[in-house]
Amino acid sequence: MGLWDIDKIEYVGRKGGAKEGLGFRYYDADKVVAGKKMKDWLRFAVAYWHTFDQRLVDPFGDGTAERPYDKYTNPMDLALAKVDYAFEFYTKLGVEYFCFHDRDIAPEGDTLRETNANLDKVVDKIEENMKSTGVKLLWNTQNLFTNPRFVSGAATSPFADIFAYSGAQVKKSLEIAKRLGAENYVFWGGREGYENLWNTEMHREQAHMAKLFHLAADYAKEIGFEGQFLIEPKPKEPTSHQYDFDAAAALAFLKTFDLEDVFKLNLEGNHANLAGHSYQHEVRFARENGILGSLDANQGDKLIGWDMDEFPSDLYDCVAVMWEVLANGSIGPHGGLNFDAKPRRTSFAADDLFRAHIVGMDSYAAGLLVAAKMHEDHYIEDLQADRYSSYESGIGKSIEDGSATLASLEEYSLDKTQAELRAATKSDHLEQVKATINNYIVDALAEA
Amino acid sequence: MGLWDIDKIEYVGRKGGAKEGLGFRYYDADKVVAGKKMKDWLRFAVAYWHTFDQRLVDPFGDGTAERPYDKYTNPMDLALAKVDYAFEFYTKLGVEYFCFHDRDIAPEGDTLRETNANLDKVVDKIEENMKSTGVKLLWNTQNLFTNPRFVSGAATSPFADIFAYSGAQVKKSLEIAKRLGAENYVFWGGREGYENLWNTEMHREQAHMAKLFHLAADYAKEIGFEGQFLIEPKPKEPTSHQYDFDAAAALAFLKTFDLEDVFKLNLEGNHANLAGHSYQHEVRFARENGILGSLDANQGDKLIGWDMDEFPSDLYDCVAVMWEVLANGSIGPHGGLNFDAKPRRTSFAADDLFRAHIVGMDSYAAGLLVAAKMHEDHYIEDLQADRYSSYESGIGKSIEDGSATLASLEEYSLDKTQAELRAATKSDHLEQVKATINNYIVDALAEA
Amino acid sequence: MGLWDIDKIEYVGRKGGAKEGLGFRYYDADKVVAGKKMKDWLRFAVAYWHTFDQRLVDPFGDGTAERPYDKYTNPMDLALAKVDYAFEFYTKLGVEYFCFHDRDIAPEGDTLRETNANLDKVVDKIEENMKSTGVKLLWNTQNLFTNPRFVSGAATSPFADIFAYSGAQVKKSLEIAKRLGAENYVFWGGREGYENLWNTEMHREQAHMAKLFHLAADYAKEIGFEGQFLIEPKPKEPTSHQYDFDAAAALAFLKTFDLEDVFKLNLEGNHANLAGHSYQHEVRFARENGILGSLDANQGDKLIGWDMDEFPSDLYDCVAVMWEVLANGSIGPHGGLNFDAKPRRTSFAADDLFRAHIVGMDSYAAGLLVAAKMHEDHYIEDLQADRYSSYESGIGKSIEDGSATLASLEEYSLDKTQAELRAATKSDHLEQVKATINNYIVDALAEA
Amino acid sequence: MGLWDIDKIEYVGRKGGAKEGLGFRYYDADKVVAGKKMKDWLRFAVAYWHTFDQRLVDPFGDGTAERPYDKYTNPMDLALAKVDYAFEFYTKLGVEYFCFHDRDIAPEGDTLRETNANLDKVVDKIEENMKSTGVKLLWNTQNLFTNPRFVSGAATSPFADIFAYSGAQVKKSLEIAKRLGAENYVFWGGREGYENLWNTEMHREQAHMAKLFHLAADYAKEIGFEGQFLIEPKPKEPTSHQYDFDAAAALAFLKTFDLEDVFKLNLEGNHANLAGHSYQHEVRFARENGILGSLDANQGDKLIGWDMDEFPSDLYDCVAVMWEVLANGSIGPHGGLNFDAKPRRTSFAADDLFRAHIVGMDSYAAGLLVAAKMHEDHYIEDLQADRYSSYESGIGKSIEDGSATLASLEEYSLDKTQAELRAATKSDHLEQVKATINNYIVDALAEA
Repeated sequence: MGLWDIDKIEYVGRKGGAKEGLGFRYYDADKVVAGKKMKDWLRFAVAYWHTFDQRLVDPFGDGTAERPYDKYTNPMDLALAKVDYAFEFYTKLGVEYFCFHDRDIAPEGDTLRETNANLDKVVDKIEENMKSTGVKLLWNTQNLFTNPRFVSGAATSPFADIFAYSGAQVKKSLEIAKRLGAENYVFWGGREGYENLWNTEMHREQAHMAKLFHLAADYAKEIGFEGQFLIEPKPKEPTSHQYDFDAAAALAFLKTFDLEDVFKLNLEGNHANLAGHSYQHEVRFARENGILGSLDANQGDKLIGWDMDEFPSDLYDCVAVMWEVLANGSIGPHGGLNFDAKPRRTSFAADDLFRAHIVGMDSYAAGLLVAAKMHEDHYIEDLQADRYSSYESGIGKSIEDGSATLASLEEYSLDKTQAELRAATKSDHLEQVKATINNYIVDALAEA
Repeated sequence: MGLWDIDKIEYVGRKGGAKEGLGFRYYDADKVVAGKKMKDWLRFAVAYWHTFDQRLVDPFGDGTAERPYDKYTNPMDLALAKVDYAFEFYTKLGVEYFCFHDRDIAPEGDTLRETNANLDKVVDKIEENMKSTGVKLLWNTQNLFTNPRFVSGAATSPFADIFAYSGAQVKKSLEIAKRLGAENYVFWGGREGYENLWNTEMHREQAHMAKLFHLAADYAKEIGFEGQFLIEPKPKEPTSHQYDFDAAAALAFLKTFDLEDVFKLNLEGNHANLAGHSYQHEVRFARENGILGSLDANQGDKLIGWDMDEFPSDLYDCVAVMWEVLANGSIGPHGGLNFDAKPRRTSFAADDLFRAHIVGMDSYAAGLLVAAKMHEDHYIEDLQADRYSSYESGIGKSIEDGSATLASLEEYSLDKTQAELRAATKSDHLEQVKATINNYIVDALAEA
Repeated sequence: MGLWDIDKIEYVGRKGGAKEGLGFRYYDADKVVAGKKMKDWLRFAVAYWHTFDQRLVDPFGDGTAERPYDKYTNPMDLALAKVDYAFEFYTKLGVEYFCFHDRDIAPEGDTLRETNANLDKVVDKIEENMKSTGVKLLWNTQNLFTNPRFVSGAATSPFADIFAYSGAQVKKSLEIAKRLGAENYVFWGGREGYENLWNTEMHREQAHMAKLFHLAADYAKEIGFEGQFLIEPKPKEPTSHQYDFDAAAALAFLKTFDLEDVFKLNLEGNHANLAGHSYQHEVRFARENGILGSLDANQGDKLIGWDMDEFPSDLYDCVAVMWEVLANGSIGPHGGLNFDAKPRRTSFAADDLFRAHIVGMDSYAAGLLVAAKMHEDHYIEDLQADRYSSYESGIGKSIEDGSATLASLEEYSLDKTQAELRAATKSDHLEQVKATINNYIVDALAEA
Repeated sequence: MGLWDIDKIEYVGRKGGAKEGLGFRYYDADKVVAGKKMKDWLRFAVAYWHTFDQRLVDPFGDGTAERPYDKYTNPMDLALAKVDYAFEFYTKLGVEYFCFHDRDIAPEGDTLRETNANLDKVVDKIEENMKSTGVKLLWNTQNLFTNPRFVSGAATSPFADIFAYSGAQVKKSLEIAKRLGAENYVFWGGREGYENLWNTEMHREQAHMAKLFHLAADYAKEIGFEGQFLIEPKPKEPTSHQYDFDAAAALAFLKTFDLEDVFKLNLEGNHANLAGHSYQHEVRFARENGILGSLDANQGDKLIGWDMDEFPSDLYDCVAVMWEVLANGSIGPHGGLNFDAKPRRTSFAADDLFRAHIVGMDSYAAGLLVAAKMHEDHYIEDLQADRYSSYESGIGKSIEDGSATLASLEEYSLDKTQAELRAATKSDHLEQVKATINNYIVDALAEA
């Protein structure tokens, strides 16, 4: 059966007995929904770090993962072998994109020169596999947080040698992005934040971070890399405060440091919750501000205060996110849904990697089906149009078209009674809106 | 003894027996600290709504407050009487500023015309009292959230008549600001946010909010009001999401809607915590981005998820905030410390209003004394200068001065070993920094 | 159409067009599910306070509610009129139970004697209506938190007169419970907790609370009231810490103060979340410890730190709770599902009261249908049986039957290798379990 | 200078220039405070795992720690060498107690037999060092969470072989406790909880946990070990729910499973906060319920949702905890203050281990000094006595002595007016209480 003891995952449908967990219930790659194939709406990607490197450690326990390549002990042998496992995994799962950090795919040497040499060997093999399988690179990025040298940040490190090293590392990763045709290039802030404000020059650190982004953009231009640059917001963890706290903080940063034309956002559900937001909020904010770039598909538990990176299964979130994606016409110009997710530490078997991705893919496919039905019915569009209709004419129109002044508003309002003003408001029957979402979930999926 | 059965509050000092709670232990208004009088650093203000209107209700209980003016039953009589109580309160407490919403000071009529007539009568009396006592208006604002007409927001209401009414209300309040010489004019977002995203056009609502701000700025210009406009961030409550979530979200908003030249921020400790930030963070962020306008002096309990508006007593917060203020040269161009705080519901006696303000004033005065000593010693400045010193020359300088490129950084880094890079980082001895803050608190206040 | 401008709510089914919000999609009262009628599994109750008294105020706004009895201005007239509205509401909605606090139904007089006289008049009318409609009292309780006299608690007040008054109030409420045949009698801790520990004798206050419970139990015996006593846990709000923090804290309290034979728990979803628990956890804990008494059906938003009392619509919670109820054979000996929920402040129309209850009833009915299917398939039962099967024989059995000792366990384990021990564990495929719950929701409701 | 390049830490006093961080400002071991030597009130202990084993990893980064014994590469050589480093550390720091898990001190073999042989060798060396230095064992415990075999718990594992192995491991650890004269024996729940309730038999798992505790108690009796057994509550992390959620949950557990006579609690500040409590609350609850056993001295950041294990420096917490300890007469019968704390990842230097412990010791010593002054003045005692005075006579006394009935309370209350009842309550001037704590901190430490 190949390297993984598992058959290619097929669509079996809702009534096809998907309970055994190794067939798709909703994800039917070529099925056309709302004018596009499912796979083109969703553009799923597998995350190298979680799927192939993650040992399922946690702060109180060693790794539990059982993987078919555990037999390799030499680091370079392992790195090269994993490439084969990875591409067979993509193919059997039916996912067309993948994502990685530089350090996910090859071991570090004692110097960057040696590290880059290791990288090159693995990238060679990845390139071959991309050609032979047709699997594409959604994005790559650089790991500027694991090595102890990044103890106080990378671009925001108080130690200039570490900034310098980070820049050198980004240079190499951009070259790889160019070579492999990455559609995007991501910066997750790792340790770009602070542990304590007393010893931190916050604005200076942010300016340094912006400096690295400008240098990266310049170099991309120089080498002709045209992928979309993305920032990935996260509010805290590992540091007490991360500079890319949420979508709004990232937008303020991009505007402050003249980076708005170059960067969009890669959003994540678990990070949204840690910042006190719903995932729906973050996606909406980015979409409406024109900075929706790509998505990390995962979920947390809102009662838990750390990043869990669970595979997504909450249908409410999947519907809300896919509704925004449909409203946007796509995830983003080059965006996809990357599973920045790991199986629970108790789901340590090798086949859990397949099972968990299937759950995530089916959940988002279900979200797509439900959201498409909602858009088809114009349910939300009509609800909103009705709610804001008073801005389409009269005083409302004068407000939006700029002809109103405080004086004209005063004249309009001065003698209106309390009762008249109350009558200008309407109940929004919010409970019923929530029930209608429930109904769409059941009805749309019952038809699947 | 006047309307309040209490003597003027005097400075008695640390050894002066302030335990009875009716003298200042640290706040000595005319004492010069770091080159300015304490009162000029701190510019304390009393909040009309909490101090004179607040009945100490909570979602599960009726008001417990006992106030000397409870005998007034006619609303206008009460409103006018309160003015006398208020100004005697300011004078006896030794506070030179106050703040109010339009609806704090006079009852609503059935129409805005009637409401404004009520307002005018009370403003006449306030103006007289300001002249006779010398007490000044730190800022005023408008209440666009209590009346049921604001059920779905004011400037962000989906109902245009409510936007119109809000504009008319702002117009009147700006006229009062002009008349009374307000140093600032505040917008707290009240219900400018959403309960649920499904029925909300978020960006359109934010554009409406920005529209009101522009109209207000235009009208201020028209009438020659030159006070500083301020936004007050809060993340949630009463709505599930408030658009002015935190300082970063407010900055993004100001930049997006071309309001950055007109507005600064009025920050609050309890709101900072509800957004997942320390108060220190919010003040630092605003200071470094040039949008620190004024401060609300209060605190919450980080284990509690709603706005408590406690009087500030946490010395760690007071020191951190005053350190930023000293670094800034002032709270802001026109800023002050407004006690947006209410006594606990169990502190319902009339004299608790004095006691609680004294606690707040003494806590911030203590914060000033401690922070001044820290600045005098250059403790934090030296700590930071040392930590970032690698950016003052060599590769660090080339990064900051713009001469570095990714290629120059690569060349610099390519052959550095892991050990060399580790050696470029230094321990920050963070535990000791925290202990040193403790030491400053004890040592600076021991001398008070 | 009667007092409420609405027809009796009927079951129309999933395909019956329930989107208009005034018919049941899943709740079919007499339909037999898992051996009992839906109405007998669910025993829905309407909460007097939220449904008939709640004005939809919040800490920043006045009430928005529009109610058909707003025309009544005299408090006793209003109280008596509401009884008619209430019973017509129950009947049209098809709910067979209701719940109330003493102060919900009749206005307070200046003394308890006067208050009780008011109460008696309303109770007379309620009794008549109960007889004529067949609607029953799930539980009543006493309001020991709204009046300012309860500022520092009731049974836990530091002021003995307030304890005394509370006892007197409970006496009267128990008499009403007896007279109206209440199936349960509830104590929600209102202000039984502390604002600050420094001035609180915590254990003494808890002993006072226990004392009141014992006095209540004694008096119930004296008057022959045989309803089930219930405690309702809540972790905080209005106080910083409530003594009945969660189910575990309540169990510790009952055991400490010798009340375990007399009391069970009335659990609530929103309270569970505020304590850091899922609703599923609290219900499971109570069920397994034999103290599951009754349920409050509502929900919060886990990103929000205060009690929202939303009508339940989250299907995941409804399924989880109903799974436990089915496992328990019933909610509890006398339990029901009381809608301790209010429409959002923006759902202020009178018919939102119907719409919101319908959403809640349909959501729990859906939960019942899904959970019943899961039990029918033994899905969870089998999953658990398989997972714990090693305790059914061998060393596992010796552990459970008490024959094992540390010495026998050591002997068994001493020479097992790391690999052998790893092999004794199994992946739990947790992602797939979550997907299977999703599948049950869709499949069971598709059939509805 | 010995193994650690540092001199013995001495008391230098507040004015002695402790800012360099290597002298005590407040901790003067033999100074008598409130009738006992400081060291006897505080009984500080060093935690082997954090201080000697912890590499300062976090979920996103490798260890940064620099330790003088990093040169040892053979695991047993390292383990034996660390003993020397540890005892010199205790001696130089002036700490008389230490704590460890079995796996902290010696490497695991492939079987428990081999592991125990490794342990014995290290314990031999520890025993020698204890004799030669006089340093004592506050408690030891067993690590039942790091090895992958504990993936689903230890005593609560669904896999009986893992329970068996856990029992065998506990047996050995108890023998070590006996041999080394441990004053306590601790169970921290590690993974005793659940990741998800659907596949968990919660009560059965708790019964298994209780079973292990009973077996341990039986074996302790058998071998004559008389140390105090302790449970350490923690609400979540690594699992989603830990059974020993907080002190109240632990008490309910002990009572349910008949373990109350055998176990007390080991409480921790960071864990308290994660459960939504102040540390003061948890200590008070345990003290008043007679289950205060010992304390873990650390702190978290209430805005952070994971366990930080910071060294304690917050004076408010230290004062509150030491106030309870003084009220209790001691931490507990055999209790101490164990630094379950690690330096921040950025404080990676070897001497940070000394610096951080000094901060922690000084902070608790300061807490002791302040709390002692508060007790000396009877400040809190008088405040509480006054507040509850109405229970000392009259109706209050009848409530406490059991003579009151609901009927007697009704008779007492029936004709009291609203005004009379309000007059029975008093303001608690809570703001002033907080300011007074501030004053005690400054005044008591100014004298130090």
